[in-house]
Amino acid sequence: MKILVLNCGSSSIKYQLFNMNGESTVLAKGLVEKIGLPQGILTHKTEGHADFCLEQPIENHQTGINLIIEALTHPDHGVIKQVSEIEAVGHRVAHGGEKFNSSALVTPEVISDIEKCIELAPLHNPANLKGITSIEALLPGIPQVAAFDTSFHQTLPEHAYIYGIPYYYYEKYRIRKYGFHGTSHKYVANKACEELGWNIEEKKIVSCHLGNGASVAAIDHGKSVETSMGFTPVEGLLMGTRSGDLDLGVLLFLMEKENMCCSELNDLINKKSGMLGVTGVSSDMRDIAKAANEGNHRAELALKMFAYTVRKYIGAYIAVMNGIDLLIFTGGIGENDCDTRQRICENLDYLGIRFDPKLNDRLRGRDAFISTSDSPVKAMVVTTNEELVIANDTYTIVNK
Amino acid sequence: MKILVLNCGSSSIKYQLFNMNGESTVLAKGLVEKIGLPQGILTHKTEGHADFCLEQPIENHQTGINLIIEALTHPDHGVIKQVSEIEAVGHRVAHGGEKFNSSALVTPEVISDIEKCIELAPLHNPANLKGITSIEALLPGIPQVAAFDTSFHQTLPEHAYIYGIPYYYYEKYRIRKYGFHGTSHKYVANKACEELGWNIEEKKIVSCHLGNGASVAAIDHGKSVETSMGFTPVEGLLMGTRSGDLDLGVLLFLMEKENMCCSELNDLINKKSGMLGVTGVSSDMRDIAKAANEGNHRAELALKMFAYTVRKYIGAYIAVMNGIDLLIFTGGIGENDCDTRQRICENLDYLGIRFDPKLNDRLRGRDAFISTSDSPVKAMVVTTNEELVIANDTYTIVNK
Repeated sequence: MKILVLNCGSSSIKYQLFNMNGESTVLAKGLVEKIGLPQGILTHKTEGHADFCLEQPIENHQTGINLIIEALTHPDHGVIKQVSEIEAVGHRVAHGGEKFNSSALVTPEVISDIEKCIELAPLHNPANLKGITSIEALLPGIPQVAAFDTSFHQTLPEHAYIYGIPYYYYEKYRIRKYGFHGTSHKYVANKACEELGWNIEEKKIVSCHLGNGASVAAIDHGKSVETSMGFTPVEGLLMGTRSGDLDLGVLLFLMEKENMCCSELNDLINKKSGMLGVTGVSSDMRDIAKAANEGNHRAELALKMFAYTVRKYIGAYIAVMNGIDLLIFTGGIGENDCDTRQRICENLDYLGIRFDPKLNDRLRGRDAFISTSDSPVKAMVVTTNEELVIANDTYTIVNK
Repeated sequence: MKILVLNCGSSSIKYQLFNMNGESTVLAKGLVEKIGLPQGILTHKTEGHADFCLEQPIENHQTGINLIIEALTHPDHGVIKQVSEIEAVGHRVAHGGEKFNSSALVTPEVISDIEKCIELAPLHNPANLKGITSIEALLPGIPQVAAFDTSFHQTLPEHAYIYGIPYYYYEKYRIRKYGFHGTSHKYVANKACEELGWNIEEKKIVSCHLGNGASVAAIDHGKSVETSMGFTPVEGLLMGTRSGDLDLGVLLFLMEKENMCCSELNDLINKKSGMLGVTGVSSDMRDIAKAANEGNHRAELALKMFAYTVRKYIGAYIAVMNGIDLLIFTGGIGENDCDTRQRICENLDYLGIRFDPKLNDRLRGRDAFISTSDSPVKAMVVTTNEELVIANDTYTIVNK
């Protein structure tokens, strides 16, 4: 069974075509960029072939998806003979609100529910919906599944998800902690437990998804009980360009002193803050590490701040669960940045985490321990694969 | 040596007169309220006498302080014969910015530095300054000392006090974490170590000052290395009427949807949120506990949230220090609310904290353990006394 997975952004579409016969394999993947701009780009990758690139205006998401289907079925660089080989489509959907605690088969009612969550994710949900409606237009009747970034965290207890503002705003707008990266946290926690031969329902796990966006989750007996992103993805850790946690008084101070409006403040905390804001150099850890090595004080400061914030969340979540069996690092930084992992994990032995710098340095792109063999808490790097989770969920739901 | 300690608010003055001969004793204390309103009130207390109350218009802080001096020297309810017996005055000052890492003898330069911090504490520093100038007008030449709420936290490392916003705002406005309740955290940590016969410079302490305002501090080898209040007192724990930590996106969402301006948002997060906002009942823990006992779900939720947030900070600060020897509770709630302490401390044995519910229930208004005798980490209730710290600092500085 071949399943197409789409991740539609406001001006981009990431895609992967999976073959789900027994072991799932990726037949092709690619990216459509600059939708709606004068010149769009499609980049299409299949194993054993050079990348296929196409530059032309891509008016909207439907045009973009049409180009993807043409690429997948192309006589030269395609991987399937005809479009009917695609039996289902899975979509990443940013926000499922309180409605979705798992992936869902797309129905008119589900579409309506995703529409209702637009207020909560005004940038992402409309793009996700465009993907769904475009597929329905191009491949009428094909089963589609929506996998939500938020659904894994719907198990948070009320005292973890309600904010300390008038309760009225929860009733009126559903303002609460939702959390994101759920697909990734769920995937790496389950994958690590499988590799360890553990039953996830008996374990306490802290999962650190560290990339340009970053979040930590506390997973107690298989359920997410706490996570660092909140109502929006700006809460929690210091990120590439997002501020993470910040005294609300700072926002009001800047609003007044700098005479900033809502959209300027939004831009400030989401696009100009974080590692970029502190360093003034870049939002990319590699650039920042390079600058720090060359003696840039603010680059070194930002690296310290990033690791320090992750450490605080690890400690907090151990208190939440009264324990930890497994600490996981995943995401671009979590999987590849040895130095950052070392800054985070060193000197955490009071919490049972005995870090092994040699193991940490040695691993490259594969799942492995970074704790000593006698560490009471296992610490691991686990590569994430959100598209595979979406493909699996789609497969399961469609075959029900 | 007799020392007057003043805590001037925008429309109130708390005072205590100490006799600092050997053991310090409180000769009298009281409160001036409703300064600038049609009817002001002075309440004056001395041991062995009924409270002395006075109701009359109290135009400004200088008038208020004059009434305090009259009460202290009054033939009936006074405790000194003449005002010249007061040899020094200590003031609580809210914000010392980055200038003050300890209490300071008031000089024209110090006054100017406190003025420079008005931008950082627009409500409090002006009132504190009124206290200082009123004393200079009424008792010219008397030595005065300023004790800052922020100074104990000036030892925070840079990676703990810099926020994840453009560094430029730190350079322009000194926007950073300052922390408050420093006098209390310092006092209870030192007092507990004295009682335990410990050298504070060898210990790791988490101090929880829980009152209507509330904060947690990590005190490593005698120095504050992290604290939960930030640039303003709104950051950190859920408080009586303050929101504590909140996704910045929520503030921007409300700003837009509810069309709220800066001062309305300020009011919302400082005066209408926290325990009051969640419960809709009260900001007072006793009222909330009563409502929860009567089955009010949101009251029970708020109690859970309060304890939960404190637990998360305790865990985070243990990670910051890679350990903990002593956990302290102080402040109105910390000293008196058994149930809240239990909610916070139960099931923290992974962190070395073995809570003893019987010890916890038994104590009343005195310093005592609430951990079991075999607990690797000591947990204690320690009564705070910020006025005494200010009196001691004043005594030390004036006698230098």
